[in-house]
Amino acid sequence: MNNSFVRQAIELAVNNVGRDGGPFAALVVKDGIVIATGVNQVTRTNDPTAHAEMVAIREACRVLGEFQLAGCDVYTSCEPCPMCLGALYWARPARVFFAAMHDDATAAGFDDSFIYRQMAVPHSQRTIPMIHVVDEQAARPFEAWVSRPGKTQY
Amino acid sequence: MNNSFVRQAIELAVNNVGRDGGPFAALVVKDGIVIATGVNQVTRTNDPTAHAEMVAIREACRVLGEFQLAGCDVYTSCEPCPMCLGALYWARPARVFFAAMHDDATAAGFDDSFIYRQMAVPHSQRTIPMIHVVDEQAARPFEAWVSRPGKTQY
Repeated sequence: MNNSFVRQAIELAVNNVGRDGGPFAALVVKDGIVIATGVNQVTRTNDPTAHAEMVAIREACRVLGEFQLAGCDVYTSCEPCPMCLGALYWARPARVFFAAMHDDATAAGFDDSFIYRQMAVPHSQRTIPMIHVVDEQAARPFEAWVSRPGKTQY
Repeated sequence: MNNSFVRQAIELAVNNVGRDGGPFAALVVKDGIVIATGVNQVTRTNDPTAHAEMVAIREACRVLGEFQLAGCDVYTSCEPCPMCLGALYWARPARVFFAAMHDDATAAGFDDSFIYRQMAVPHSQRTIPMIHVVDEQAARPFEAWVSRPGKTQY
């Protein structure tokens, strides 16, 4: 662990507010080197997925030419929201270090805690209704995937 | 609800496997019109965040010039993973329709159920360790955000 990387993320997050971005930043570190940074740019780029961790993960993968972050550490100014946590599990870095807690984000007006709680709510009762459409062809994509030779697993 | 949109997502997902993409696709529909589609392109683009729903959400926001999907419906070939579910909550469409269940994705070798379960595991016991770094400056980004006049909330 290197606390200075967390501090760098905090500084980037503070600076990003001055650029009308959200108060979040993240770094991806490999072998002690920062290989990518990301700041929240949801409103600047009209992209609701452009959270700091997402931007940093995408940039680090671009730099590495890989779709995984093997051997990398992620440092972030705040505990990841559910979207970013999910992205981290797909990217599979070694470790994640964070400064503020997601309750702190909630206190500042962000939906992090709300979304975490929604995940435990039955589909039909969520604030965004999620409706299971029964279609007899629903399994076809997975059948195609399982039977495909030489596929690139991820 | 229009079942034909779910069927379109299934067809796109099947076709995507033939292009060495993952077996997933999604559509964003507004006023009965498909405004964006997305297919999984994680391995094709070296981007672990490039799930079908993420690609479709980003494209729909680009088309609309907005960072929200107000009044839109999302149709997806499979129940969203935690990352995509989080993204949907940030994008805030009206409704989400899905065909296969996340257990079906798991049965085909994807981590969806595993990631959903990890969210309930204490930070230090997760398979990707998440480490809270105590830094007395951790609150500064949120303080900057709260005190900023005229900021664009999201």
